[in-house]
Amino acid sequence: MSEPAPESPGPGSSDPRTPVGADVRVARVSPWRTTATREVYRNPWITVREDQVVRPDGSPGIYGVVSTSHAVGVVALTDADEVVLIGQWRYTLEAYSWEIVEGGTDAGEAPAEAAVRELAEEAGYAAATWSVLVEDLALSNSVTDERATIYLARDLTPVPTSPDPTEVLERRTVSLDALLDEIDRGLITDAITIVAAAALDRRLRR
Amino acid sequence: MSEPAPESPGPGSSDPRTPVGADVRVARVSPWRTTATREVYRNPWITVREDQVVRPDGSPGIYGVVSTSHAVGVVALTDADEVVLIGQWRYTLEAYSWEIVEGGTDAGEAPAEAAVRELAEEAGYAAATWSVLVEDLALSNSVTDERATIYLARDLTPVPTSPDPTEVLERRTVSLDALLDEIDRGLITDAITIVAAAALDRRLRR
Repeated sequence: MSEPAPESPGPGSSDPRTPVGADVRVARVSPWRTTATREVYRNPWITVREDQVVRPDGSPGIYGVVSTSHAVGVVALTDADEVVLIGQWRYTLEAYSWEIVEGGTDAGEAPAEAAVRELAEEAGYAAATWSVLVEDLALSNSVTDERATIYLARDLTPVPTSPDPTEVLERRTVSLDALLDEIDRGLITDAITIVAAAALDRRLRR
Repeated sequence: MSEPAPESPGPGSSDPRTPVGADVRVARVSPWRTTATREVYRNPWITVREDQVVRPDGSPGIYGVVSTSHAVGVVALTDADEVVLIGQWRYTLEAYSWEIVEGGTDAGEAPAEAAVRELAEEAGYAAATWSVLVEDLALSNSVTDERATIYLARDLTPVPTSPDPTEVLERRTVSLDALLDEIDRGLITDAITIVAAAALDRRLRR
C-alpha cells in the first residue's frame, strides 16, 4: 500500500493532544475518574464493560462502554470513476443497506491490512493505489469506542471474492454525483458511507 | 416546531420498503432468522441482547446487538450564520471532542422534542425555525441499532442552560467553512457532526 494508515491516538493513550489553534484541540485531561471496571458481556465481535465512575461534577455513577475492533471503510473507485457499493441486510437495523466496502480489523491486523482484505472479500478487487481519505472517525462516541479509518482505493484489478459466511452481498457501482444524490434522498443511511462520500467530494473539488 | 420529524422505519417494522429505482432500495426480507434472544446487560442508557441466529448462509450463530435511544443532532445556526459547537470529554474515546449539539431521546420523548431540549440544555438556545437536515442516519450498524436524526435550528434566542450533571461543556461558534476545514484537518472526528456539516453544505450550495 502506498500510504499506510498513521497510528491514531486511540483509547488508552495518555498523551494529551498537541495544541492546535487557540481552543480547538488543546491538551486536556479527563474530568472523569474510573474507580472500578468489570466486563459484563463478550462475544467474538464486541466487549461490554461497566465502569464505576466519578463524573465531571463529582457525583458517582456508572458508564457502560461497548468496545469493538477498529472499523475500516474503502472507497473503491473504478477506472470509470465510479464507487463500488455493497448491499446487505443489516441485522441490527432490520433493514437493507447500501454501503461502501466496510469491515473491522481481525485480531492483530492493522487497519490498512483490513482494508486490503475487505476490498478483496466484499468487492473482489485489489488496488494498486491507496490513500487515507478520513483518518479517524468516531461513530457512536456516547456508547462505543468504535473508530473508523476510511481509505480511497484506485487502479483496481479483479481478484476472487471470498465473502464472510455471515454476509450475502450485492454489488453495484455509481458515480460520486449519483451517490451524493442517493444520500440526499435518504436512500443511503450508513454513517461511514456518507462521511466517505463527503470527504471524496471535498477532495475532488479542491 | 415548524417541521416535526417524520417517523423513520425503525427496527421492528415489518413493512418492506417501497421500491425506489431499479435496485437501490427494493422490497426485501431478512435473510437472517432469529431463533432465541436473551438480554445480557442493561443500564439506563443501553441494552445488550444476544440472539441465537441462523445466518444468511444457513449456518447457526449468535448476534450481539446494542440498543440505544434515538440520537439527535442539532445544527444551531446563529444570526451571523455560525454553527454552535459543544466541547466535551468523551469517556468512551478518552479524548476531547468538539461536536454540534447532540443527545438522545428520553423515555417517551420524540426525536424532535429531544432536539428542542438538547438545544436548550447544551447550547442555551431556543429556535423559532426548525427543519430536518438528515432524517435517518445509522451510526454503527454492525453492532448497534442506533439511528440519528439531525435538525437545523435557526432564529435562536437565549434561554437558561441546564446541562446534564454528567457533562462539563464548552461552547464556541464557527462558520460552516471553518467547520469543514476543521473536519478536513482531522480536528473534528464525531460522525454526526461531520454528516451534519456535509448536509448543510450540500443544502446551501443547491
